[in-house]
Amino acid sequence: MSIATTMIIRLEIRKSVASFADVASGIAAAGGDIVAIDVIRAGKEVTTRDITVNVQDATNEEIHRILSAMDGIKVINVSDSTFLAHLGGKIEIMPKMKIKNREDLSQVYTPGVARVSMAIAEDPAKAYSLTIKRNTVAVVTDGTAVLGLGDIGPEAAMPVMEGKAMLFKQLAGIDAFPLCLDTKDSEEIIRIVKAVSPGFGGINLEDISSPRCFEIERRLAEELDIPVFHDDQHGTAVVALAGLLNALKVVGLTLAEARIVVVGIGAAGVSICNLLLAAGARCIYAVDREGVLVREAAYGNPEWTKLAARTNPDNVQGGLAEVMQGADVFIGVAGGGILNVEHLKSMSANNIVFAMANPNPEIEPELAEPHVRVLATGRSDYPNQINNVLCFPGIFRGALDCRAAVVNLEMKLAAAKAIASVVLEEELNEQYIIPSIFNDKVVEQVRLAVIRAAMSTGVARRVPPDVAGIEPLIKEN
Amino acid sequence: MSIATTMIIRLEIRKSVASFADVASGIAAAGGDIVAIDVIRAGKEVTTRDITVNVQDATNEEIHRILSAMDGIKVINVSDSTFLAHLGGKIEIMPKMKIKNREDLSQVYTPGVARVSMAIAEDPAKAYSLTIKRNTVAVVTDGTAVLGLGDIGPEAAMPVMEGKAMLFKQLAGIDAFPLCLDTKDSEEIIRIVKAVSPGFGGINLEDISSPRCFEIERRLAEELDIPVFHDDQHGTAVVALAGLLNALKVVGLTLAEARIVVVGIGAAGVSICNLLLAAGARCIYAVDREGVLVREAAYGNPEWTKLAARTNPDNVQGGLAEVMQGADVFIGVAGGGILNVEHLKSMSANNIVFAMANPNPEIEPELAEPHVRVLATGRSDYPNQINNVLCFPGIFRGALDCRAAVVNLEMKLAAAKAIASVVLEEELNEQYIIPSIFNDKVVEQVRLAVIRAAMSTGVARRVPPDVAGIEPLIKEN
Repeated sequence: MSIATTMIIRLEIRKSVASFADVASGIAAAGGDIVAIDVIRAGKEVTTRDITVNVQDATNEEIHRILSAMDGIKVINVSDSTFLAHLGGKIEIMPKMKIKNREDLSQVYTPGVARVSMAIAEDPAKAYSLTIKRNTVAVVTDGTAVLGLGDIGPEAAMPVMEGKAMLFKQLAGIDAFPLCLDTKDSEEIIRIVKAVSPGFGGINLEDISSPRCFEIERRLAEELDIPVFHDDQHGTAVVALAGLLNALKVVGLTLAEARIVVVGIGAAGVSICNLLLAAGARCIYAVDREGVLVREAAYGNPEWTKLAARTNPDNVQGGLAEVMQGADVFIGVAGGGILNVEHLKSMSANNIVFAMANPNPEIEPELAEPHVRVLATGRSDYPNQINNVLCFPGIFRGALDCRAAVVNLEMKLAAAKAIASVVLEEELNEQYIIPSIFNDKVVEQVRLAVIRAAMSTGVARRVPPDVAGIEPLIKEN
Repeated sequence: MSIATTMIIRLEIRKSVASFADVASGIAAAGGDIVAIDVIRAGKEVTTRDITVNVQDATNEEIHRILSAMDGIKVINVSDSTFLAHLGGKIEIMPKMKIKNREDLSQVYTPGVARVSMAIAEDPAKAYSLTIKRNTVAVVTDGTAVLGLGDIGPEAAMPVMEGKAMLFKQLAGIDAFPLCLDTKDSEEIIRIVKAVSPGFGGINLEDISSPRCFEIERRLAEELDIPVFHDDQHGTAVVALAGLLNALKVVGLTLAEARIVVVGIGAAGVSICNLLLAAGARCIYAVDREGVLVREAAYGNPEWTKLAARTNPDNVQGGLAEVMQGADVFIGVAGGGILNVEHLKSMSANNIVFAMANPNPEIEPELAEPHVRVLATGRSDYPNQINNVLCFPGIFRGALDCRAAVVNLEMKLAAAKAIASVVLEEELNEQYIIPSIFNDKVVEQVRLAVIRAAMSTGVARRVPPDVAGIEPLIKEN
């Protein structure tokens, strides 16, 4: 895969032999774009410089090769800004206050802490006020379905989970901690998450392969009294629904009348179909490698069997080509390149295409654009990015703040509508159906919608002061 | 138990009816000590004040009762500084950098993070440089032996573990995260810790009851390749040995010649005996409720049977009174009040007493002092506090920095000697055998000693730059 990145090249230039112009042309020849130059040491004979270069392909070693071959140039070091950003990891655990003296110590540790522990032992619900529980989420994975990379293991999953923890904190003030598990056994994962749950206010399941993820989430949601949310399923579904609600407005269709093709019936695909059905969609075709799910068939994956019974109302047989005939909406969570221009031409005139496979969409946006009315992808370098980051911070902020026991369907629907509503009617157009993840109204509005949905469905165990319309008070122990 | 604390009392004084002098005398009568007064609102008729009061017994409600009964005084709120310090928990998870724009996001999260994940998938050892692993310790408990409180459960253990995490960070820069497990099954605890280990560089076991703690630690140390350290056992033992080495210098005895009584043969007691033996002690009497361990006996607890074979060289029979006759050293990790003055009088003239039970020592220090040459306790309000906090930050800092595979006996002995050495020969006296936990030489010297011991015993997998005598370099990916 090709990912743009920034390299920092430290080199020595022997002035009598080579010039910076030689370096610059060498870098340009290799496809690099110089964006900064820092002089580290300027000697009489030799200067040392750090040259910051944007390159289109992170695996590019051409620049290094060309520069190393030049007379009078010595490459000291080549750093890659992405790897540099990861050195030592991306999160840290900070005390909320400094222990300055023995008195402080005896409050936060022995012997004073014993009174706090006893108060919780007498009433475990006090863990919500006297420990980190009320604001802390475990980001749990087994590393079996990390990004588009597949089963790369728990260690390799860590950078993704740390990145997620950064987003939780920056966007929603939530303390999230990664737990990357060295087991693929569903029962064991369930037992582990249950066992570690006393210290957490919520569980974010992440990058667990399908179909195990369904059973793990279902069981944990049933057996724990804190919200459990598999982001790959529901985060994606919530944001896709948000985008689709706005896209349908742009083209003048309702969800109930749209013919919708969903391709890739894994964790995300199943959840998208279910959420669209709950939101009022009536005509969905669920397609995987074997073709479209059909009503009479039984499938090895029980989720498919359940979906087959609720989709494909006119029982179309065949594959992608067949269901795309006359379709209004395509939603892809499958893989790069499975869609072609012929497919798009066979859709209805006001067609909507969400090509969400990452990093390579189901069809290159440049190819698709001439044949699509509203186009969205999972990528940040095109308009209309369908990104889970729009969902999980706000949905957990809301669930934690009202101490929801679960994240139910109503809360997910409310979150999708809240995300969609951040784009105002007068702003809405083909190029702008979904807000930016840096739009700070998103978390705020998702939070509020989720709290209201949790309260109205009876799963909230606390009314946040701002929702109750009262000023927050420092509550006594 | 009686623990001093600080209360903050907000009250309204109706000037025409009552005066601040009335309030002050009421608080004094109830045993409170006013340490600060803040005027919140000064009205014509009514003033509102916050009065900060030190009280000897945190459960004291006398002040509230007396003030509430006074004419012209209205108690608005009574806060307890210890509980206030715990509101919302004591640690938080912080991103190391802010995500300012899409470029930042694509480095620390998708799509850029995929390259970092792939690098780790190809070489899992890279988790040490590219994730939080190298600086992160799990503080794991099942809540079965929390402080002196016993089996109070995982939720109630959280405040203690959070306090520990604060100390790890403040004293040694280590990111520690509490995992309070809702299971008491040793096999399950072992499985859970193994499963969560990919994200951690070390495991600090805490407050797990004896004898389960021995098996859990032994198995984890064998089955994991990261250091596992049960602080209640070894932290206590290391600091007790440190104090004893210095106390023996004060009284002019060697470890080999000292007759040593260890009372309370639980997690800490077993480890103290083993570490003293490893350090050269030859004459230890291990005492529990059943009396002194004797050579011929077999015990239900296999640790006791092992200890019995290595202690009580002259095979003394009986209980505490018998073994205290002529003893040089008493080390108590048992319970409050088990020791009396007669016991002390029967010891040798240059006797050393470590009455470490918390919060109530084996004998009240005031009672013991006239009959003891060197006295130490676990408490901060007397000289010579034997506190685990002197050990765990430095021992983990050292183990993490040299990427030790285990914490072995040599590392523990080295840590004890390093702690002892912080008290210089010329400073050493009966009142000063152990440094303060706020002495910043402690972590530094323990770290260095632990690294050297790890290297010389072949368990270090990395030589820290400062130990190798070279300047640290930013390492490339």
